[in-house]
Amino acid sequence: MTAPKDKNQKVSIIFQPSGRRGAGFKGQTILEAAQELGVEISSICGGKQSCGKCRVKVEWGKVNPSALTEEERKFIAAEEEAAGYRLACAAQIESDTLITVPGESSVSQPLILKNLINFSSKINPAVKNYYIELPPPTLADPRGDLERLQESLRNHYGLKNLSIDYWALQNLSLNLRQGNWKVTALVSLNQEILSILPGKIEDYYGIALDIGTTSLAIYLGHLPNGQIIAANSRLNPQVIFGEDVMSRIQYALEKGGAGVKSLTKKVREAVNELIKEMAKSVAISPEEIIEMAVVGNTAMHHLFLGLTPQYLGVAPFTPTLNNALYIKARELGLMMNPAANVYFLPIEAGFVGADNVGVLISQEPYLQEEISLIIDVGTNGEILLGNKKRILSASCATGPAFEGAHIKFGMRAAPGAIERVRIDSQNGTIQYRVIGSEKWVTDGSSPEIKARGICGSGIIEAVAEMRRAGIIERNGRISKELPSLRQRFNAQGEFIIARAEETAFNKDITISIDDIRAVQLAKGALYAGAKILMKVLGIKKPDKVILAGGFGSIIDPEKAMAIGMFPSCALPQVRAVGNAAGIGACLALFDQDKRAEAERAAKQVEYIELTTHPDFQEEFIKALSFPI
Amino acid sequence: MTAPKDKNQKVSIIFQPSGRRGAGFKGQTILEAAQELGVEISSICGGKQSCGKCRVKVEWGKVNPSALTEEERKFIAAEEEAAGYRLACAAQIESDTLITVPGESSVSQPLILKNLINFSSKINPAVKNYYIELPPPTLADPRGDLERLQESLRNHYGLKNLSIDYWALQNLSLNLRQGNWKVTALVSLNQEILSILPGKIEDYYGIALDIGTTSLAIYLGHLPNGQIIAANSRLNPQVIFGEDVMSRIQYALEKGGAGVKSLTKKVREAVNELIKEMAKSVAISPEEIIEMAVVGNTAMHHLFLGLTPQYLGVAPFTPTLNNALYIKARELGLMMNPAANVYFLPIEAGFVGADNVGVLISQEPYLQEEISLIIDVGTNGEILLGNKKRILSASCATGPAFEGAHIKFGMRAAPGAIERVRIDSQNGTIQYRVIGSEKWVTDGSSPEIKARGICGSGIIEAVAEMRRAGIIERNGRISKELPSLRQRFNAQGEFIIARAEETAFNKDITISIDDIRAVQLAKGALYAGAKILMKVLGIKKPDKVILAGGFGSIIDPEKAMAIGMFPSCALPQVRAVGNAAGIGACLALFDQDKRAEAERAAKQVEYIELTTHPDFQEEFIKALSFPI
Ligand code: FES
Ligand code: FES
Repeated sequence: MTAPKDKNQKVSIIFQPSGRRGAGFKGQTILEAAQELGVEISSICGGKQSCGKCRVKVEWGKVNPSALTEEERKFIAAEEEAAGYRLACAAQIESDTLITVPGESSVSQPLILKNLINFSSKINPAVKNYYIELPPPTLADPRGDLERLQESLRNHYGLKNLSIDYWALQNLSLNLRQGNWKVTALVSLNQEILSILPGKIEDYYGIALDIGTTSLAIYLGHLPNGQIIAANSRLNPQVIFGEDVMSRIQYALEKGGAGVKSLTKKVREAVNELIKEMAKSVAISPEEIIEMAVVGNTAMHHLFLGLTPQYLGVAPFTPTLNNALYIKARELGLMMNPAANVYFLPIEAGFVGADNVGVLISQEPYLQEEISLIIDVGTNGEILLGNKKRILSASCATGPAFEGAHIKFGMRAAPGAIERVRIDSQNGTIQYRVIGSEKWVTDGSSPEIKARGICGSGIIEAVAEMRRAGIIERNGRISKELPSLRQRFNAQGEFIIARAEETAFNKDITISIDDIRAVQLAKGALYAGAKILMKVLGIKKPDKVILAGGFGSIIDPEKAMAIGMFPSCALPQVRAVGNAAGIGACLALFDQDKRAEAERAAKQVEYIELTTHPDFQEEFIKALSFPI
Repeated sequence: MTAPKDKNQKVSIIFQPSGRRGAGFKGQTILEAAQELGVEISSICGGKQSCGKCRVKVEWGKVNPSALTEEERKFIAAEEEAAGYRLACAAQIESDTLITVPGESSVSQPLILKNLINFSSKINPAVKNYYIELPPPTLADPRGDLERLQESLRNHYGLKNLSIDYWALQNLSLNLRQGNWKVTALVSLNQEILSILPGKIEDYYGIALDIGTTSLAIYLGHLPNGQIIAANSRLNPQVIFGEDVMSRIQYALEKGGAGVKSLTKKVREAVNELIKEMAKSVAISPEEIIEMAVVGNTAMHHLFLGLTPQYLGVAPFTPTLNNALYIKARELGLMMNPAANVYFLPIEAGFVGADNVGVLISQEPYLQEEISLIIDVGTNGEILLGNKKRILSASCATGPAFEGAHIKFGMRAAPGAIERVRIDSQNGTIQYRVIGSEKWVTDGSSPEIKARGICGSGIIEAVAEMRRAGIIERNGRISKELPSLRQRFNAQGEFIIARAEETAFNKDITISIDDIRAVQLAKGALYAGAKILMKVLGIKKPDKVILAGGFGSIIDPEKAMAIGMFPSCALPQVRAVGNAAGIGACLALFDQDKRAEAERAAKQVEYIELTTHPDFQEEFIKALSFPI
């Protein structure tokens, strides 16, 4: 049964939720591949198929043997087998593969994202709780339970013409009696009863969801007190169908309805797993989650809704709809209260999506005199420029470099990711810090957490510092004039950030010439895009710059400016705000007035198509070099 | 494998859709049992398991062998096996059983019910079709498909603030393009887009559903032209959980949520089969059915909605809701357009349901000066009495005798059911007519269709004629003074209506003493109920009497009066209208104004509890005898 290992037969492997990806080879066990790529999987027995700790889920791709071995059967139940569970030390990789390392098999804890969003909101959620004591029915009062409830809510709270969700209706009679006619009604937008619960309920929850092309981020909010109490994130599993938006649209186009269905199914399943983990982590039931607000670019928005994105990919790039929308959670198959309404923020234009509207309502440039330049870094770069008078938007094809993808040792922001880098320009000494540890690692010091890769903000820092120290030249080449033990001029040319002995997989973590090139292309596109918008708006310089995006560590504005991500601006006027799209979703979750604001703002924005702008190419080429 | 036949081990068998029921015995094949009970099943090979024509579906109960035989496998696919399909000549009955004879295995054609409802309606359906030609999207017009459609519908038809069903949304972009921007919008209540279809659509359909305790009746209407184009009916399969409302409530109470679920599932499955057959019969797709209007008594209404009926069975008999309601077809799992809205007529009071509201809007007593007495005969008897000033209602426990159940040779109105009976009081000659044939059968004449049982109207006719001819006495006994070849004084005492040689199963079809007793109890309850309502309203005599109900042949008013179903009234003032509840559902389907009328009418009616009325017992006992 065991196939011979063949180092020449390369396969590509992605591990979720860390997002770590790289090459393995046929015949390698999943555990071996994980170790080489720095993905930690529990393996107490050392890979002898005897501890059962290394359970993983093969989401996609072939492994050998195709069915469970006898040893595996001891640890994996039949339903789990059907879901793709295997022991990582037993299953050998046979093809390109997507593997999920479930929480229980993962050594490291997921990153607590809630620290990464800087959040405070007015508390005015769409769903409110109304405690009510009803008169019990009598022979003299033959009305239905619903009609009696509606009248009480009208008399006590002035709520008129309330409808009831069908799911709530099915539990209504039982719950009224269980509460002995003392119940709490959860009411959406003062229009619809979503749930009737026995007794007085003061804790109920909502979710803000940010569907990125590469990553999904989800926030759990306590609705009546306006607090984010948990967050979770993982790779958008649609990456197996294509890394960027266009390739997913292409996939949907080629496969037709079935293609859309499988893309939709993948992302909804991942969202459900995020919800499940998150609810478990704070010990609530998914039934207690009674609302959701969603942002995402137009293609992600369409695919989550099960709408074909195919017309988004061809002129005139028409979305199926652009206004805000409410859909029942059960219609989307989401693991939360089936009566919950899911609010989709509006879309601006074909390629400027609800994610950008989330950024808008979190930064509110439309309320200000000052002109803001807002750069949202994701798999695409989205730029907004303007103030209360006029707001322009544009979309730049940056590629996912700033998210850690397409970078040799790139990874998502997760424990072990290098997020900060300092280089002493005098003696070339390097210091770095990884997510999950406060300690700066330097030559000879032993790390608390071994490095496993570099996340987006780490890449920006590394490149900025390398340039500052003269290790790379303005055009991006690695300088040969500044010899250092850390430079290597092999086929690629690379610079060592973390040495093999400091890493989880005993290999040097480096920044290569190709990585630097990817950063130059990405930051050049953003810079040129901003320049074009400034020309259109007729300004020389924005009053302030806001750096948003990523689900990684917050970008250091100084480093971003150093590599030339945006036209220069006085440093105090540059601010990094983290995941502004996600913040926007949270605001829409906690404050229904923000929804009206989003709907107005989406209509105000003017979309500027960069690729057809006559000056774009020239600006882009100029922007590829480093500024100083 | 073959178990011995044992005539002493009786089992009870029900055949659908005919509703024919009776005793069989263990070890008998389904085909043998069907033949004895007069249910025709195709059996070209004569039961040799070689023609495959006798396929039936075992819905409930055990048969032997429990798995398909090799012979059966030739005719029954694996999915069909899972659904319970067997060859009737192969499977032996082992326990009480419910068998469905599918259309293709049935010799006789289903009764065309649409002739039985006397129908004409204003045409103002809730769902209307709007043909529209849209401007195609351009780069200069970046709006979504939905927003462009909404604007066109506003501009051309003044339709404002249209929402869209989620299902319609999912097909929107494709359908607009397939129609080359020329499409028809099906819009519900001028509020919600249910479907966008390429081109100009002028045919679309709706369903009126009447959920009876014993029978389901369904009517297919062509919405824009107001015609009923097909109808279908079958046994309510919930009968296996109890014949009357109280026993089903009891079942739900004992089994809890799972009991409600299985009752709901049964009735929805049966409705889906009815829709499927009906759609096939007129060669339309279930997707073209875009609305439904539902009537049914309160328990049937609740169970179809998946609501527990348990609180309907105990004082104060509170329904979960009493107002009208719209629910999406897909929420109910119905086989029609998933975007369709299902309209439930309102309920009056605990035991006076939406079926009675259907009767009300079809007869409109609330618009008239004259006082109508409306008697709706079903498994329960529902009575309405009143005019524009005041309307009373009451419910009588009649039992299902008038639906042909609990009558030895009773059956639903289906081909072969005796529906008319005449007895010559001079010479005792009998003439009868069966559904499906125009020919009167009399001694010695050979029938076109062999009789298989007696339906509700046939039972009333038989009893009325037997009384008129003096065969039964006023108190209900069979007279011994009028000897006739047709009387038999065996253990029971019975009177032969059809002789063995005229019947499908070579056995005499008779009316027994027990049958006469059941008729007396049922008509006595109706009569007494009407008397009490007349007392409450303070009248001596209604201005007119309307006989509604049954899914059988329309009752002959003269015969009904002869047996004393209602207080006497000048015969020209008595009218039989067929299934008035079903007519009400059809009216609500074709004319949205009738819905508002139903909602008003339901609130006007006063429910009178008969069982607690001091005079009821006395009136009931008086009413047991025949009037003359
Ligand atoms: S590592 Fe112990 S079973 Fe796989
Ligand atoms: S009667 Fe022919 S197969 Fe059953």
